Amino acid sequence: MSICFLNNKFIDIQEAKISPLDRGFLFGDAIYEVIIAVNKKPFELDAHLTRLKKNISSLKYSLSDQVDLEEIILEVISRNKFLKQVIYVQISRGTDTVRDHIPSNDLTPTIFVSSHELKTEFSTSSGEKAILLEDFRWRKSQIKATSLLANVIYRSKAKHQEVFETILFENGFITEGAVSNVFCCIDNKIVTPPLTENILPGVTRKVILEIIQDTSLECEETKISVDSFLLAKEIWVTNSTKGIIPIIELDGKKIGSGLPGEKYLQISKAFINKLSG
Amino acid sequence: MSICFLNNKFIDIQEAKISPLDRGFLFGDAIYEVIIAVNKKPFELDAHLTRLKKNISSLKYSLSDQVDLEEIILEVISRNKFLKQVIYVQISRGTDTVRDHIPSNDLTPTIFVSSHELKTEFSTSSGEKAILLEDFRWRKSQIKATSLLANVIYRSKAKHQEVFETILFENGFITEGAVSNVFCCIDNKIVTPPLTENILPGVTRKVILEIIQDTSLECEETKISVDSFLLAKEIWVTNSTKGIIPIIELDGKKIGSGLPGEKYLQISKAFINKLSG
Repeated sequence: MSICFLNNKFIDIQEAKISPLDRGFLFGDAIYEVIIAVNKKPFELDAHLTRLKKNISSLKYSLSDQVDLEEIILEVISRNKFLKQVIYVQISRGTDTVRDHIPSNDLTPTIFVSSHELKTEFSTSSGEKAILLEDFRWRKSQIKATSLLANVIYRSKAKHQEVFETILFENGFITEGAVSNVFCCIDNKIVTPPLTENILPGVTRKVILEIIQDTSLECEETKISVDSFLLAKEIWVTNSTKGIIPIIELDGKKIGSGLPGEKYLQISKAFINKLSG
Repeated sequence: MSICFLNNKFIDIQEAKISPLDRGFLFGDAIYEVIIAVNKKPFELDAHLTRLKKNISSLKYSLSDQVDLEEIILEVISRNKFLKQVIYVQISRGTDTVRDHIPSNDLTPTIFVSSHELKTEFSTSSGEKAILLEDFRWRKSQIKATSLLANVIYRSKAKHQEVFETILFENGFITEGAVSNVFCCIDNKIVTPPLTENILPGVTRKVILEIIQDTSLECEETKISVDSFLLAKEIWVTNSTKGIIPIIELDGKKIGSGLPGEKYLQISKAFINKLSG
């Protein structure tokens, strides 16, 4: 049994029901966070909650100050048995009486928080493959919203081509992965696209940047042309449920030596330490 | 009471419930149609069903051949009391057991068909206002999918600025409205963006093009630069629930004489005739 939170109740997810007039269902008018808990302790909860609240505010959802999201999340973690959990938090604008793009005033947001087992081992990875595709998503990817059909299409393509991730580019420059941020090593420097490049401000991206700052490695948030990306010595993708993963083959071509790189090994080790600390 | 169809049952919409693990709710992984019925007869049902089936196929939803969407729609119309109805049809990819962008194989799609009263009068309009904004939607707008948060934002801006519609442009060329297709009259010719311009192949757009073909008016599907659009003598927007509406003011500036134009009056009359025929 898996316990979730929905409409002010903690219930078995099998019993959880929403109206089809919920704007999350009708319009993808909802935001979300994916948070991991290790030993039942949420990782970087503040960063996730800060981003969630920023999105609530930018989309003008009428979430009451009375709602304590942190308390709800901790309670969901506590009520589920796994030591390692993936906590999914989705807040939609609410349920309207008639479908209309323009929302009624002061709808009560729907809050859904679920948990399932996190199966990732967070050990050093032997590397994964990826493909590169043109980015056709909307130009507001900094908002972590559930209007995700583009990402579903990209993930399905990755599965179909038996690779780990689809990495995207727009106007000749790398943006991010379908469900990850991207780092690479060019001329001995670690680079990652800046937040101005239509990307999500990933929590794991932030953690990795903090880790790099504590090393002597050179790092820059800067635009990455596809041409220079293809010549990178290392490529990594990062997200909350997988951590940091080296990409050793892109579109069928080896990246660097075709093995996880030195810088990956150093940063990954520090990341795993941080996660278990 | 309003009767809808959900999960193989005709029920009061107040009783209708779906799982929050429905991919329509989690990912905007659903497609839809908005169909009007006049005197309880659906208008252009074949065109709507053809588009819906095309989208089902392009997104690889596993909808059984046994499902007769036309029969369901006709039954929903019949079970609701209004002579003029808005029929909303949404098909999501189905309900997964765990949230993952990559869908499980062979999910059973969720079919939701609802009805509410259509209040539009379909008489000659005295004209409406619009605003012009840069198009930040995804680049697959030909798919009528529910990942619609961008459109919600544009519609909310229109409401906030007390105008009827937000018209969009990309790279200096008009695409479409947030919930409409766009026509305009330039140099005595009616023009509308071609289907290659990241727009929805609107059913009302198709009907208007057919009507124009039966007149002596010149018409072309061609790219419209923002510069030429601003100098148009007439601008119209079209959609299923509103029909054809002249835009007489754009970003606070008069279009043409600031009154509905001659061509609009001619086409609108023919459209209303077709609707009641």
